[in-house]
Amino acid sequence: MPTKPSQTPLEQQRNRQPAADSDGDADPAKPTPETQIFHDRESQVASYCTEWPAVFDTARGCYQYSEDGTRYLDFFSGAGALNYGHNHPALRKPLLDYLTGEHVTHSLDTFTVAKRNFLEAFDRIVLGPRGLDYKVQFPGPTGTNSVEAALKIARKCTGREQVVSFTNAFHGMTLGSLAVTGNSMKRAGAGTPLYHASPAPYDDYFDGQTADFLWLEKAWEDSGSGLAVPAAVIVETVQGEGGLRAARMNWLRELHALCRRHEVLLIVDDVQAGCGRTGTFFSFEPAGIQPDIVCLSKSISGYGLPMALTLLRPELDQWDPGEHNGTFRGHNPAFVTATAALETFWTDDRLQRNVADRSEQLQDALNHIVESVDGAALRGRGLLTGVAFDDAEVAGKIQAAAFERGLLVETSGPESEAIKIMPALTITEDELAEGIDLLLAATGAVLKIDLSREPSLVG
Amino acid sequence: MPTKPSQTPLEQQRNRQPAADSDGDADPAKPTPETQIFHDRESQVASYCTEWPAVFDTARGCYQYSEDGTRYLDFFSGAGALNYGHNHPALRKPLLDYLTGEHVTHSLDTFTVAKRNFLEAFDRIVLGPRGLDYKVQFPGPTGTNSVEAALKIARKCTGREQVVSFTNAFHGMTLGSLAVTGNSMKRAGAGTPLYHASPAPYDDYFDGQTADFLWLEKAWEDSGSGLAVPAAVIVETVQGEGGLRAARMNWLRELHALCRRHEVLLIVDDVQAGCGRTGTFFSFEPAGIQPDIVCLSKSISGYGLPMALTLLRPELDQWDPGEHNGTFRGHNPAFVTATAALETFWTDDRLQRNVADRSEQLQDALNHIVESVDGAALRGRGLLTGVAFDDAEVAGKIQAAAFERGLLVETSGPESEAIKIMPALTITEDELAEGIDLLLAATGAVLKIDLSREPSLVG
Amino acid sequence: MPTKPSQTPLEQQRNRQPAADSDGDADPAKPTPETQIFHDRESQVASYCTEWPAVFDTARGCYQYSEDGTRYLDFFSGAGALNYGHNHPALRKPLLDYLTGEHVTHSLDTFTVAKRNFLEAFDRIVLGPRGLDYKVQFPGPTGTNSVEAALKIARKCTGREQVVSFTNAFHGMTLGSLAVTGNSMKRAGAGTPLYHASPAPYDDYFDGQTADFLWLEKAWEDSGSGLAVPAAVIVETVQGEGGLRAARMNWLRELHALCRRHEVLLIVDDVQAGCGRTGTFFSFEPAGIQPDIVCLSKSISGYGLPMALTLLRPELDQWDPGEHNGTFRGHNPAFVTATAALETFWTDDRLQRNVADRSEQLQDALNHIVESVDGAALRGRGLLTGVAFDDAEVAGKIQAAAFERGLLVETSGPESEAIKIMPALTITEDELAEGIDLLLAATGAVLKIDLSREPSLVG
Amino acid sequence: MPTKPSQTPLEQQRNRQPAADSDGDADPAKPTPETQIFHDRESQVASYCTEWPAVFDTARGCYQYSEDGTRYLDFFSGAGALNYGHNHPALRKPLLDYLTGEHVTHSLDTFTVAKRNFLEAFDRIVLGPRGLDYKVQFPGPTGTNSVEAALKIARKCTGREQVVSFTNAFHGMTLGSLAVTGNSMKRAGAGTPLYHASPAPYDDYFDGQTADFLWLEKAWEDSGSGLAVPAAVIVETVQGEGGLRAARMNWLRELHALCRRHEVLLIVDDVQAGCGRTGTFFSFEPAGIQPDIVCLSKSISGYGLPMALTLLRPELDQWDPGEHNGTFRGHNPAFVTATAALETFWTDDRLQRNVADRSEQLQDALNHIVESVDGAALRGRGLLTGVAFDDAEVAGKIQAAAFERGLLVETSGPESEAIKIMPALTITEDELAEGIDLLLAATGAVLKIDLSREPSLVG
Repeated sequence: MPTKPSQTPLEQQRNRQPAADSDGDADPAKPTPETQIFHDRESQVASYCTEWPAVFDTARGCYQYSEDGTRYLDFFSGAGALNYGHNHPALRKPLLDYLTGEHVTHSLDTFTVAKRNFLEAFDRIVLGPRGLDYKVQFPGPTGTNSVEAALKIARKCTGREQVVSFTNAFHGMTLGSLAVTGNSMKRAGAGTPLYHASPAPYDDYFDGQTADFLWLEKAWEDSGSGLAVPAAVIVETVQGEGGLRAARMNWLRELHALCRRHEVLLIVDDVQAGCGRTGTFFSFEPAGIQPDIVCLSKSISGYGLPMALTLLRPELDQWDPGEHNGTFRGHNPAFVTATAALETFWTDDRLQRNVADRSEQLQDALNHIVESVDGAALRGRGLLTGVAFDDAEVAGKIQAAAFERGLLVETSGPESEAIKIMPALTITEDELAEGIDLLLAATGAVLKIDLSREPSLVG
Repeated sequence: MPTKPSQTPLEQQRNRQPAADSDGDADPAKPTPETQIFHDRESQVASYCTEWPAVFDTARGCYQYSEDGTRYLDFFSGAGALNYGHNHPALRKPLLDYLTGEHVTHSLDTFTVAKRNFLEAFDRIVLGPRGLDYKVQFPGPTGTNSVEAALKIARKCTGREQVVSFTNAFHGMTLGSLAVTGNSMKRAGAGTPLYHASPAPYDDYFDGQTADFLWLEKAWEDSGSGLAVPAAVIVETVQGEGGLRAARMNWLRELHALCRRHEVLLIVDDVQAGCGRTGTFFSFEPAGIQPDIVCLSKSISGYGLPMALTLLRPELDQWDPGEHNGTFRGHNPAFVTATAALETFWTDDRLQRNVADRSEQLQDALNHIVESVDGAALRGRGLLTGVAFDDAEVAGKIQAAAFERGLLVETSGPESEAIKIMPALTITEDELAEGIDLLLAATGAVLKIDLSREPSLVG
Repeated sequence: MPTKPSQTPLEQQRNRQPAADSDGDADPAKPTPETQIFHDRESQVASYCTEWPAVFDTARGCYQYSEDGTRYLDFFSGAGALNYGHNHPALRKPLLDYLTGEHVTHSLDTFTVAKRNFLEAFDRIVLGPRGLDYKVQFPGPTGTNSVEAALKIARKCTGREQVVSFTNAFHGMTLGSLAVTGNSMKRAGAGTPLYHASPAPYDDYFDGQTADFLWLEKAWEDSGSGLAVPAAVIVETVQGEGGLRAARMNWLRELHALCRRHEVLLIVDDVQAGCGRTGTFFSFEPAGIQPDIVCLSKSISGYGLPMALTLLRPELDQWDPGEHNGTFRGHNPAFVTATAALETFWTDDRLQRNVADRSEQLQDALNHIVESVDGAALRGRGLLTGVAFDDAEVAGKIQAAAFERGLLVETSGPESEAIKIMPALTITEDELAEGIDLLLAATGAVLKIDLSREPSLVG
Repeated sequence: MPTKPSQTPLEQQRNRQPAADSDGDADPAKPTPETQIFHDRESQVASYCTEWPAVFDTARGCYQYSEDGTRYLDFFSGAGALNYGHNHPALRKPLLDYLTGEHVTHSLDTFTVAKRNFLEAFDRIVLGPRGLDYKVQFPGPTGTNSVEAALKIARKCTGREQVVSFTNAFHGMTLGSLAVTGNSMKRAGAGTPLYHASPAPYDDYFDGQTADFLWLEKAWEDSGSGLAVPAAVIVETVQGEGGLRAARMNWLRELHALCRRHEVLLIVDDVQAGCGRTGTFFSFEPAGIQPDIVCLSKSISGYGLPMALTLLRPELDQWDPGEHNGTFRGHNPAFVTATAALETFWTDDRLQRNVADRSEQLQDALNHIVESVDGAALRGRGLLTGVAFDDAEVAGKIQAAAFERGLLVETSGPESEAIKIMPALTITEDELAEGIDLLLAATGAVLKIDLSREPSLVG
């Protein structure tokens, strides 16, 4: 566990470089002996490392530590894969026990005790209390694999090819998922056209006056529209990568009703917004809808271990055995931590209450930014939230200034125009306050305004 | 660690069911209290569990144990993800240390000490000694993700769309990989047509007289052929899923030369055949070729933990940062076991010698089957090998009979016509002999012939 | 020329069937000795013959005659291919002279005197006076071939694949044109998915309140929208097949400006609405726009002979020689009648004035229907006009009742919900009045209302 | 009819340019007052005019005349659209009568007397005597439209998407037909990928030793091949555009049998090779096969007027009415000349005997070239024949040299490596001899050898 002296990167730099010459600005992305091998051997496709050029070593809760002992408060949480923080002891213990006990690690899709335990816990803790009836597919341990499985079974079950996705959607980088992803740079990466997906405007995409589903409803009813009734609509309730827009519950309900009317399947991609990120286990719970298919990954294992689920209404489970497969469907250490996470965090309401309280605390601070900056806008829901700026470059500068101060925040959106705040759901009031102070300081420094406030602790 | 009494399934069954009625044949696929939740909640897409309906709990080396204590000798090794056997102590120790030390588990594509250690080891132990110069992309921890990344960058770099794959190829289930996969049942699972892939005959597909690359060579040279020069050719050196055909080294060399002549990229999908499975680290080493792109996954972590690499010739590393991403690119526990695996098994030649010896021992036994059964044929290379039968149903029956005897073997091929033998590369002579005896017994029982032999120990 | 006694079908039937039994209703689609060969040998894809089961023989001006001498007033004009009526003597004369003189009939794309004469006339009479500068491509003598050429060159010139078309568009039945056609029955006829086309709402598709190009404008500006900026937009100014909706000039201007802003090519498919059908030679003239590409066919030859043009802004003429070809690009008899048609009808304003007057006369009558029938709506522009009914079956019944009365009118729209009125542009006031009376009688009979009026002659 | 003094272009040039300076070589492609409008207004896609920059005016039989009176012997026949020569009086007479009689010209797909006469003649003269039972579709009057209709109905009837075509096939320029066309330059003109077509080697594509259908047969039988059993195979019996290769009858029979075994439809594209070009009405007759679908166009009207047919086995006529349509399906003047052509040329065997005799006469001469030129090879069948040269530029030079001498010959093949000889089927022995002499002179001049022979008249 991290025992080195804890410092912010600024402190670290000051201590390390007493004799820095007047220019001072050592390029953080320049290779050092510690990072040389990455520059020599790792593909340039890696991106986070260029923004946060530290070499991370240890981590606990909402903190990460680089090998030189610098401490970073983590407001990114593995893009949502670490909802319960880093290396939570309640998950680590059963994981270590499992590994120590020589239990089966890799099992493809055979039955294992660990998988059974997970299924029973998922059934008892997640599905049952919410009145949800889904078959659980283990589609390979990544979000994009879950989405690919969802798209395939939706097309197979309906006999239709088209899938409607939304503007600025992000569903993954393999070819099927990429086709329903909006980002043009990432789409171009395919090197081929992308097929059988058509985008529709996400909630509040326009002027706020245009009826939400005017186009889809009309086009699907009109046999001459040229827009076929699709196999499915795939939606994120909050667009984690696409700029943090959050759909209103009423919009989701109308979308659900629209799909039902036209016998179109509704797929909710809850990979980033699920597992409590917005306050409830599934992000769509407040809307009172039951999607036909749900994609889960990221935080389902709870510990950052690769794992994914595709949940199917039972009548959609029309797979032939082996029709969709993959080597790492049976990653038992992930089943173990996933089970522990459900038992630890979802059998009472403490986590949900913390998310609610911390969301309020965070929103209060973000509103302070919004009120202080022309054209800034609050985005998101729960602890998947942030602020978008008119000048897209501002967000990137805040990210850099925050990193200098020991805070990891990311940007989001087609122009990277929003800062994105995703602390661990288990973060304490004090930890969040610390991060908020760093964020306000970084924002203030970038915009050359004073955002310092009374201590941000709530009552 | 497994301490329960170790029995074969037959022994187990005998002991468990003293009063079985005259019919006797309890359907192994019928739900039991132990498997009920799987039937209730898991998607019917799962396939291995229907063939091996045990609930596995512990595992060590080449043995797996079900929760009732039954012991299974594993001739499948996680479809090649467990080349060093289950839970090898030399990998488990650093894994436990890493987890205990609260080192960072999930890191996206930031720098970590664990990733650095892996890259250094991979550079020093794998690439350097083989004179190979590749950039390493971590594309998401599955084989199909590695293939998708390979196809995307090949298309991006060449500006061409088409990719040539081979008959009976298997490259994965996401849409890009599925397009270069041969199996028609799996292809139909896409629910849409598949794009920009055209199959060519694999080595020895025809009569043995037709020149190997007659068609591709002629068609690529002829501007009127209608077959565009492709971005890439993707090939497995041994078709692990497609019936265990192994390409001759000369065929690979000719393919390599053909691609070079036409400036077509050569992608070797070494997900199943790599990491020592055929005797060398990369399966293509004996051919003396350097592919442009190599896909690795399965056993690269060594411990069955999800991990994948895409190796790119440096001039092909033309990704924009983030152009291909994924949440689980930075799975540090896998980096740790992967590093340990390289250090343990690839810094001397003991493993390779064992693979050579065990391959010989195994081939001897399989030849015994081939010589005893009309129309049976030896397939594969190294410890990725097996026997194909004229009557495709024979293989499935042998699989079932082997399972009854406590041996896990799979089938392979478009008609599941071959039994597939993939023991751990670390298996001992005695362990292999034990498995061989079980296999011969199962085969003999199915074919109603006597295959028993002198003890199969070599020397 | 037709010399047989001229009768309406009703008169004809009465005279022919004095002893018809009380049932009376001989199925007009039933084979007769005269039509048996069609039933035996012609594909069932033929459709107009099932609605108008007469065997036509002669024709003059706006009248067609069946072989039994029945006279039909033609309000359909070959779906717009006979804008100057049947067999106009001013065109027939030069055609006969040409054929008699053994001038070259078929010439591929070599130079001929007849083609030169046409190009000179088209340049002098059509392009010059309108200030239009286009290269003329002869793409094969059909509308769909013209559209295919337009789509290909638009994609080649822009390097983009996507084309935006509109709801209820009709552009042709070959695969490229079909992809930008809205009708789902016709699209399904492809037997494959259709590619690289995305529909957008045509003018007045919604509630009349939604801004017209809100979606395209926003989506093209947003790099994360998932909707790529297309190669081109293809539009009909009046949707001849899709229900006779006519775009407002202002909508066309806005569309033109939108395309200019985003460097998207604007293709006007003037196959049906062009050649004077709406009052001006090109239907887009009143909007004051200059499309990048214009498709012409149908009435360009003036005589119903196959001929088509694709007009390209000079900088778009980036074809390699022979890159788009076709056997019947050089159909010289059509060039001859086309030249004669330009000289006869487009060197003064008599035709245009007649179209204006007849449009007014016709609109007056159609308004009478609209005012008399709940939910009926006037559609179209110029002499490409009609009435849509709430109850889609009404239009089909009016068609049948009109045919019985000796009037050929068609239906239009995804549900065939509109009657479509397209008389020859040369029709006289009296002839139009005759047809209007028949139409009102037919409509009245179907709807069981009295639509008879004062004589419909204007002035 | 042409009354101007008849000269070859060389004579013409000599007479016209007595004072040409020593350079002499006026660029024939340079605009003249006579051709200026073409350069100003016609798209550069036109290709024949650049090779034969004459302005043609009149034509009779196998001769064309430019406006300056130069006579050209036509060995191209409108790429096969003028099998009966230019303006044959036996066709012109009924055509003039029809037009003079004010018979209906344009009729969409209504019944007309002219269409009925054609169907009856086609039934009586073509189908009946050959024991063929086809439904006749009029798909729009061009070859590519016939092919598009064929592909659509084949896919609709089989529910499959893929179509197999052959290397160097040419089937048309609209998107569906282009996908089954081999030429890479023309394919690139699509501006998008082309879909659902996979090429296979045409007869004699390889070394002459590889079994013809080894690959298709094996791949279709192997569910793991990745090559789906297609909807159809489309084939030309002689590749008119693709280099004049002619399939052996036995190869066609084997292809037919292969298709039957796998329930794959066989489409013969007889657009260029049909209507007697190879000696029989359908080019496949000598093979004794009955294709499932036949495409006819070019010479079916007999007079160079646009017309096309798609012939369907009756059980394949599963179109919905109007599912494939087009404005010029009912081009009655073409029906009239088509009927006259059938009556004139196909009710006795004179034409066929002439084709046989002239083929022999022509082959004799072409063999003379082949024997005199290293690497030259005879290609084709009947009067769709020619000579391919090792040095592809030779063919183009012969074309130019022939044009100078008043002979129109084209080139064919992916590299335009073959000269293509397609005289009218009605050509006399003397006329053919004249053309042969010109061809030998041109070839001799290009290759600087003496090819003059004894007079080439047979017997």
